[in-house]
Amino acid sequence: MVQGGVDAVHVTICYHEDFRETVSNIETWNRYFQVYSDRIVPGRTAQDIVDANKNGKTAIIFGFQNCSPILDDIGLIEICHQLGVRFMQLSYNNQSVLATGCYEQEDPGITRMGHQVIKEMNRVGLVIDMSHSAEKSTLQAIELSERPIAITHANPSAWHPTLRNKSDRVLIALAESGGMLGVSLYPHHLKDAGECTLDSFCRMVAETVEKMGIEHVGLGSDLCQDQPDSVVNWMRNGRWTRETDYGEGSVSASGFPSQPQWFGNNADFQNIRNGLESVGFTGAEADSIMGGNWLDFFQRSFGPGG
Amino acid sequence: MVQGGVDAVHVTICYHEDFRETVSNIETWNRYFQVYSDRIVPGRTAQDIVDANKNGKTAIIFGFQNCSPILDDIGLIEICHQLGVRFMQLSYNNQSVLATGCYEQEDPGITRMGHQVIKEMNRVGLVIDMSHSAEKSTLQAIELSERPIAITHANPSAWHPTLRNKSDRVLIALAESGGMLGVSLYPHHLKDAGECTLDSFCRMVAETVEKMGIEHVGLGSDLCQDQPDSVVNWMRNGRWTRETDYGEGSVSASGFPSQPQWFGNNADFQNIRNGLESVGFTGAEADSIMGGNWLDFFQRSFGPGG
Repeated sequence: MVQGGVDAVHVTICYHEDFRETVSNIETWNRYFQVYSDRIVPGRTAQDIVDANKNGKTAIIFGFQNCSPILDDIGLIEICHQLGVRFMQLSYNNQSVLATGCYEQEDPGITRMGHQVIKEMNRVGLVIDMSHSAEKSTLQAIELSERPIAITHANPSAWHPTLRNKSDRVLIALAESGGMLGVSLYPHHLKDAGECTLDSFCRMVAETVEKMGIEHVGLGSDLCQDQPDSVVNWMRNGRWTRETDYGEGSVSASGFPSQPQWFGNNADFQNIRNGLESVGFTGAEADSIMGGNWLDFFQRSFGPGG
Repeated sequence: MVQGGVDAVHVTICYHEDFRETVSNIETWNRYFQVYSDRIVPGRTAQDIVDANKNGKTAIIFGFQNCSPILDDIGLIEICHQLGVRFMQLSYNNQSVLATGCYEQEDPGITRMGHQVIKEMNRVGLVIDMSHSAEKSTLQAIELSERPIAITHANPSAWHPTLRNKSDRVLIALAESGGMLGVSLYPHHLKDAGECTLDSFCRMVAETVEKMGIEHVGLGSDLCQDQPDSVVNWMRNGRWTRETDYGEGSVSASGFPSQPQWFGNNADFQNIRNGLESVGFTGAEADSIMGGNWLDFFQRSFGPGG
C-alpha cells in the first residue's frame, strides 16, 4: 500500500453479520492495529489520514456494506461509531429494514425505521452510503439526510448499464447535496469488464466530473485483493438464500472477476493518476480525484452533526 | 449532584449481564448524555472530570462490577474500553473465569485466562477493580498487574469484619503498588451499619491513611440512591441461583439497608468533608481524599499502557 501511495483504505467490516459477529470483525482489526502498528493505523478522523500520510502509514476506515449489525436497535448506531465505524450502507442488494437494494424488483423507498436511522447517523457522524441501494431509496436518502451522503463505489450507468451503477439523476442529486461518488474498478462495474482500457475508464471519470463537478468525485476501487472466492460467495449469498445467487457474475464465471491489467493491485494507483492526466486533468485535479476530495469529505462528515 | 459538589460518578454498567445486554446498558447512558447534556458528560479521561468541574456538570465513569460481558473473548476488553468503560472487577462475590469472589470457600487465585486479561487490561487502560474479590486473588492481581489497581468500594476488615471488607495485608500491598482504595458508605460495610457515626467513619479513614498513605485513599460511596430493592436482588442473585441469596443482608432485612443519617444521598458529601476536618485532616488533605487522589489515579490509568 505504501508502494501505491495509499494513505487511507475503506475496509468492509460486515456484509451480513449481526452485531456480535461484527464486533468480532472489529476485534480482528484492533488486533491488526497492534501487530502491524508500523504499517496501519485506525482512520477515525480526517486528521488520522493526514498523520498516516506524514508517517508513511495507511489509515484504515471501517465501513459496513449493510445495516445488519444494527438489527432493530437505533442505539447501536452510536455504539458502532464509538467502535470506529464511519460508513454504513442502508441496504445491500436486497431489501433491508431501512431501504431497498438494487437487485429488488420494487423499491418503496426509505422505511419508517430508515427515516429515524438517517437522523441518528447524521447526529453521530456515521456516513450514509447507498452504493448497493435502489434508485428511489437512494434519491430519498439524499433528500432526507441533512448531511451529504456517499456512494462509495459505483460508476455511471450511462457508461456501463448494470443494476449496481447509478443513473445520471442520482449522480446529479448526489452532487447537488454535497455528496461524493467513488468510481469503481470492480470489473463488473466497468465497460468491457476486465478488458476495460485505462483510457475508457479515465474518459468516464472526465464525463462524470462534467456532470457532478470535480469536488464530488473520488476513487472507490472495490478492490478485493488476495481474497478467496468464498468471500464473494459470502457477499452474494450470506445466509439469506438456499439458492446460489451469482450476483453480477454467472454460473460460468462465479468467482472474483479478473482485474484490468492496469489495475491489478494496490500498487497500481499511479497508473490511474497518469491516465487522468492523459485525458486532460491537471496534476492538482488528479490529486483531488485520487484522494483530496475524500479527505475534505471526511473532514466534514466523521464528527457529530451540528 | 451539583448540590453535593460531585464532579464525577462511577456508575455500574453490569453485574451479571452478557456482552449484548451490557451494550444495551451503555446505549441507555449514551441516550442520557444526549437528553441531559446540561447536567452530565461522559467521563473517559481525567480531563473530562476537570472540564465537568469547570462547567458545573458531573462526569459519568463506566465500570463493570463483574467480568461477565467479556465472556471468553479477550478482544472484548478493548471493545469495552472503546465504549467508554474504565473499571472492571475480575469477579463479583462468586468464582468467575478470571478470579475468585469474596463469598467462595476456596480461593485458588487468578486463573489462566485471568493472567492474560490482566495484561490486556493493562495495555488498553481498563482499571482492574478487586472490590468483590477474595483475598488470594486480590493479592495476586496486585502482584501480576503492571499498573496500579483499585479497590473502588470497601473498608478495612480491621474496623468492621465482613467478607467484603479488606485485610490490612491487602490494603498495604495495594498501597505499595500505587493502587487506590475507595472507602465505602454502604451500611453493610460500616461498623454499626446505618447507626455508624460520622466520627467513627472518619476515624477509620484516618487509620487507613496511616496504614496506606493519604494518596492511596479516596471515596467509593457504593450509594444506591433511589433504586428499588429489585436492583439489590439482581446484584445478589442474578441468574446464577434458584435459591435466594441475601448477601450481606438477611431474610428479615432483604432490601437496601438504611443509610446513616449524615449520608442519606449525594447532596451530603460536604458532611463527610467536614467530618474529615473534625478528626484532624487539613483542608488540602480532605480535598485529596474527597476527589483529588482519584483524579490523579484517573490521569495515570485511563490511557493505553506504556
